[in-house]
Amino acid sequence: MTSHQVQWVFLGLVAVLTLSGLFGALARRLGQPAVVGEILAGIVIGPSLFGGAVAHALLPAEVRPMLTALANLGLALFMFAIGYELRFGELRGRGGLALRVSVFSVALPFALGALLALAVADAHPGPNRAGFVIFLGAALSVTAFPVLARILSDRGLDRTRLGAVALAAAAIADLLAWGLLGISATVAGTAGQHRMLLVPVYLAVMVLGVRPLLRRVFAGAEEDGVTPGRFGVLLVALLMSCWATEWMGIHFIFGAFLLGAVAPRGVRRDVAAEVTGRLEAVGGLLLPVYFVLAAIRVDLSSVGLSGAGNSP
Amino acid sequence: MTSHQVQWVFLGLVAVLTLSGLFGALARRLGQPAVVGEILAGIVIGPSLFGGAVAHALLPAEVRPMLTALANLGLALFMFAIGYELRFGELRGRGGLALRVSVFSVALPFALGALLALAVADAHPGPNRAGFVIFLGAALSVTAFPVLARILSDRGLDRTRLGAVALAAAAIADLLAWGLLGISATVAGTAGQHRMLLVPVYLAVMVLGVRPLLRRVFAGAEEDGVTPGRFGVLLVALLMSCWATEWMGIHFIFGAFLLGAVAPRGVRRDVAAEVTGRLEAVGGLLLPVYFVLAAIRVDLSSVGLSGAGNSP
Repeated sequence: MTSHQVQWVFLGLVAVLTLSGLFGALARRLGQPAVVGEILAGIVIGPSLFGGAVAHALLPAEVRPMLTALANLGLALFMFAIGYELRFGELRGRGGLALRVSVFSVALPFALGALLALAVADAHPGPNRAGFVIFLGAALSVTAFPVLARILSDRGLDRTRLGAVALAAAAIADLLAWGLLGISATVAGTAGQHRMLLVPVYLAVMVLGVRPLLRRVFAGAEEDGVTPGRFGVLLVALLMSCWATEWMGIHFIFGAFLLGAVAPRGVRRDVAAEVTGRLEAVGGLLLPVYFVLAAIRVDLSSVGLSGAGNSP
Repeated sequence: MTSHQVQWVFLGLVAVLTLSGLFGALARRLGQPAVVGEILAGIVIGPSLFGGAVAHALLPAEVRPMLTALANLGLALFMFAIGYELRFGELRGRGGLALRVSVFSVALPFALGALLALAVADAHPGPNRAGFVIFLGAALSVTAFPVLARILSDRGLDRTRLGAVALAAAAIADLLAWGLLGISATVAGTAGQHRMLLVPVYLAVMVLGVRPLLRRVFAGAEEDGVTPGRFGVLLVALLMSCWATEWMGIHFIFGAFLLGAVAPRGVRRDVAAEVTGRLEAVGGLLLPVYFVLAAIRVDLSSVGLSGAGNSP
């Protein structure tokens, strides 16, 4: 990393934190969660206006991967905290509800997307019609899981029964949708999607291997607290889980969320509070960077019916 | 950032955190501060052994800038915390002592380095003899300021009188040494070093502008705590200060340390504790990455007298 890049990473963080702070405060004043403002900030400096000149000046292309790395770490820690704070007790007896909500919330947009794909397929000739139809259906049914989690967290709903059902439903729905995307890629003949078949193995390792391991590591935390060693083991498990899901072709947010869901909470609440307190300090700093950077890629100026392919 | 890079950033962090944790624990067992172990971990996987094959496999070149960005952020937050926890009260009446220690600790290695440079200058013919002499003197008198701070912090000495004097002396000594490096670059005709002349302006802005501004922002923190808004202003000020020092050709750690030194502490201790608690959570996660990555560049296998230039 050159000194020039070091300077631009600092300046880029200043720009992103200032913008997300201002737009977040504006959103809250309008009765919206802060994350809506952060996404709006990304769209405003993105290519929709002035051809992206603002984003280009504030966040030069050469430092964006470094800012993205910071943002991804923030997102991973945040999704862990969301999974960790999931109240399984609130879900008891409501697993069926969460499952029905999630299946229906995938089925409806998938069906609509697939119908749309069938209608416009002739105007988009490709090597593989079935792949195109499944892809458009799946693309429309993927939830913005982190945005949902942020909205629930901004609103203080993440620790309620409603929040628990919504999060569980969104997690299942997104896994279904990512699975459909994997199927569409397989149908279309893209390589490397067979790794997704390892998802059941991964889930088994997490529940049968990682969960008891972490329980053993945190067994003494009731007495002598969350030592650097214990925290380190938890972090390494989190990073490994993120890597595994990303490697299988699913987004790493699921790895982070799932590790949070299986991590031991301890009998006393303050072990959990200590863990989430530390992670939220990091997440609170880096998380807005994620939403701003994600929204920067949106180009509203290219949205229109002309691309749908039915115009002559 | 491609999915491949995302995966390698997670794996790279796993490797660095695991290694730094193991070597740090080993160092503590041997009665050494953890940071010694972390630096040793970097040297062991670096080019000194097996030509750097281990570092190459664990931390591919394409993701190192991203890991460095994470490490730099951790270092900036840590150096801020060190400056913030500096007990100015302990320095009262000892400013002269800190100044004498720092001037002497620059003067002695500088003189020895300059003498050495004069002795070997004939074997290293360059366009500029004076620049070479000043450079070697300055290079030998630069302190590893972050390593000193980590050692004091690992040992719990950073909040003592001895720690305060050592930190103040190291800060002054390093500023002197960076100034000498700037002079050597100017003498040697390298461009861009004139920015260092702005250091007095920067110091004035920090003391007369940023300090009162932060004091006003934190005036209400005694009552309603460190709100996200207040924390955000502090972070932006920190990043700007880091950028300014890096832009002037001084390392950004001074910008971070100095902002910590001028930041308002509040009358009640818990405002300060809340700020440092949040920053230390981030720093504790990212800081070992800095020391491991810094030490990876060390190549002990190329150290020897053969390069001194006096062999025929």
